[in-house]
Amino acid sequence: MQTIEQLQKLLETAIKNLKFPDQPKQLYDPITYIINLGGKRIRPLLVLMATELFGKDAINSIHAAMAIEVFHNFTLVHDDIMDNAPLRRGQATVHEKWSTNTAILSGDVMMVEANKNLAKVNPIFLKDVLDTFNATAQGVCEGQQLDMEFEQRDDVGIDEYINMIRLKTAVLLGGALKLGAIIAGASEKDADLIYQFGENIGIAFQLQDDILDVYADPEKFGKQVGGDIIANKKTFLLLKAFELANGEIKHTLKTWTDYREFDSKEKVEAVKGVYDALGIQNIAKESMNNYLDKALKVFAQINVSENAKSNLLALTTQLMAREY
Amino acid sequence: MQTIEQLQKLLETAIKNLKFPDQPKQLYDPITYIINLGGKRIRPLLVLMATELFGKDAINSIHAAMAIEVFHNFTLVHDDIMDNAPLRRGQATVHEKWSTNTAILSGDVMMVEANKNLAKVNPIFLKDVLDTFNATAQGVCEGQQLDMEFEQRDDVGIDEYINMIRLKTAVLLGGALKLGAIIAGASEKDADLIYQFGENIGIAFQLQDDILDVYADPEKFGKQVGGDIIANKKTFLLLKAFELANGEIKHTLKTWTDYREFDSKEKVEAVKGVYDALGIQNIAKESMNNYLDKALKVFAQINVSENAKSNLLALTTQLMAREY
Repeated sequence: MQTIEQLQKLLETAIKNLKFPDQPKQLYDPITYIINLGGKRIRPLLVLMATELFGKDAINSIHAAMAIEVFHNFTLVHDDIMDNAPLRRGQATVHEKWSTNTAILSGDVMMVEANKNLAKVNPIFLKDVLDTFNATAQGVCEGQQLDMEFEQRDDVGIDEYINMIRLKTAVLLGGALKLGAIIAGASEKDADLIYQFGENIGIAFQLQDDILDVYADPEKFGKQVGGDIIANKKTFLLLKAFELANGEIKHTLKTWTDYREFDSKEKVEAVKGVYDALGIQNIAKESMNNYLDKALKVFAQINVSENAKSNLLALTTQLMAREY
Repeated sequence: MQTIEQLQKLLETAIKNLKFPDQPKQLYDPITYIINLGGKRIRPLLVLMATELFGKDAINSIHAAMAIEVFHNFTLVHDDIMDNAPLRRGQATVHEKWSTNTAILSGDVMMVEANKNLAKVNPIFLKDVLDTFNATAQGVCEGQQLDMEFEQRDDVGIDEYINMIRLKTAVLLGGALKLGAIIAGASEKDADLIYQFGENIGIAFQLQDDILDVYADPEKFGKQVGGDIIANKKTFLLLKAFELANGEIKHTLKTWTDYREFDSKEKVEAVKGVYDALGIQNIAKESMNNYLDKALKVFAQINVSENAKSNLLALTTQLMAREY
C-alpha cells in the first residue's frame, strides 16, 4: 500500500500530464489555467485511496481520479459565473480573466474531458463507473441549484440545509471513494459503505467550515474570520440561530442581518454574541460530530483489514484536525 | 426494416417517456420545456436509422438516440446564452424565460442526463459508444468556440469556415450515425464510412442553409429571407464574396456591411446584387454538391444491401430537396 505522499505525487504527475488540444486556444487555455490554480486534490486522492483500500494498486483508478478532478474544476468554473465570484484561490476566475461565454463553453468541454478520462477505465467496470459518476454529477448540479435558491429564501430549515450541502459537496466525496472501490472490484456492499462514509465525512467537513468561519484562530485561518456573517451566508450557524432565537436576541440578529451598511467588525461581534448566547457553536459541533460518528461507524463495517484502513483514517483525522 | 414514419413514432414516444426528477423544479423544468419545443428530431432519427441500416432493430439504439437529442438540446440552451438569443423555435429561450444561471445549470444537468442515457446501451458496445459520443461533443464545443471567434474577426477564410460548420453542426450528424452503427455491431470500417457520410451531408446541409437564406422562395421559406445579410453573418456566401470582390463591387460590399443603420430591404437587395455579380450562388451550390457527392460516394462503399440503404438515401433526398 502506498503512502498518502506517494499517492499525491502520482496525482501531481497525472495532472501535469493531462493533455488538452492546442486549438481553439480560447477554449482550452482556461482549462489548464483553472486546473493549475492548485487546491488540495482531496477528491482525486480519495479515488486512489479507495482503490488501495480494497487491495488494488492506485494506478488502476488514475483515469477516474482525473475525471473527478476535471469535473470538480468544471463545477468551480460554472459556479463562479453563477456566484459572480471575482476570485478563486486568490486568482481571477475564468469568467473574469476571459469572459462569461468562454467560461460557459470551457466548462462544457471540461465536462467532456472528464467523461473522456472516465471512458479509459477497465471496460469491465465501465457501466458501474458511469452510473456512479453520473449520479454524483447530477447531485452536485442539484446542490448548486438549491444553494442558489436558498439565497432568495428566508425560510430555509436545517434539514434542507444539510440536504443542500450533502448534494453540493458531500456526494462528490462519496462518489470519488465509490469509483475507486468499484475499480478495485470491491463488493457492492463495500462500495455502498465507502460511499456513505464519504457522504457523511463531507457533511461533517462542511459543518466544520461553517464553524471555522466564526470560531477559527485568526492567526491560523487562511481567510477573514466572520466572512459568512458579513455576507449573511445561510450557514448551519445562522439558520440554527434564527430557529432558536426569541425576543431581544431575535431582534438583534434580525437587525444586523437586515442592515445594508454596517461596520464589518461590529457586525461579526454582534452576530457572534447572538451565537454565543444561544450556544450555537456547541450545537454545530454536536451535529458535525454526529456525521463524523456515522461516517466512522459505516467505515468500521467495511470488510477489509484494519491495516488497509489506516491511510483513510489518517487522512480523515488530518482533515478534521483544523483548529478552532 | 421500419419506415421513417415508424421510427419517428418510436422517437416521439421515447421523448415523451424521458423522465427527469421533480425537484429542484427550477433545474428540471427548463429541460422538459426545451425538449418539448419540438424540432425535426433528425439527429436521434439518424441514430435509429443507422442501427437499422446494419440489420438490427432500432429499439437497440433508442437510449443512444435519446442521449443525442438531450445533448443537442443542451447545446441549444448554452448556445442561446452565448449568442444572446431571445427566441428559439418562436418561443422564449431558457435564459430569457428563467435566467442565465438557470440556463447554465440546467444545461449542465442535461449533459449529465445525456450521459445517463448513453450508459444504458449494451455494455459490450459501451466503450466505443462513449469514445464516439465524447469526440462528437468535443467537436461541437470547438465549433461553437470558432463560431464566436469568427464574429470578432475580419479575415476568416473559406477553409476555416468549412471547418467551423463541420465541427459545429456536421460532426453531430456523423456521430449520431456512427453511434447507431456501433450499436448494430457494424464493422469499424463501416462505422467510419457512415460517420464520413454524416459529416459530409452535414456540411452540405449547412451550405444549403446559407444559400436558402438569400435565395429561398419567400412563400415557402419559414423565416425572413436575407436574415444573414442583415446581420452580417459570416456565411459561405459573404466570405466568398469578400474573397472574390474587387474595385467597385468590393466597395459596395464593404459599404453595406459597415453601415450601422440601414434599411433592411435595401441592404438585402444591394448585397444580393453583389452576390449575383460575382456568381456566388453557383459557387456555393457547387461546393454544396461537392460535399453531397463525397457523402454519397462513401455511402456507396458501405457493405450492406442496396435495399437496406434506401431509407437513409430517401431521408437525405428529402432533406436536400428544400426549394430555392
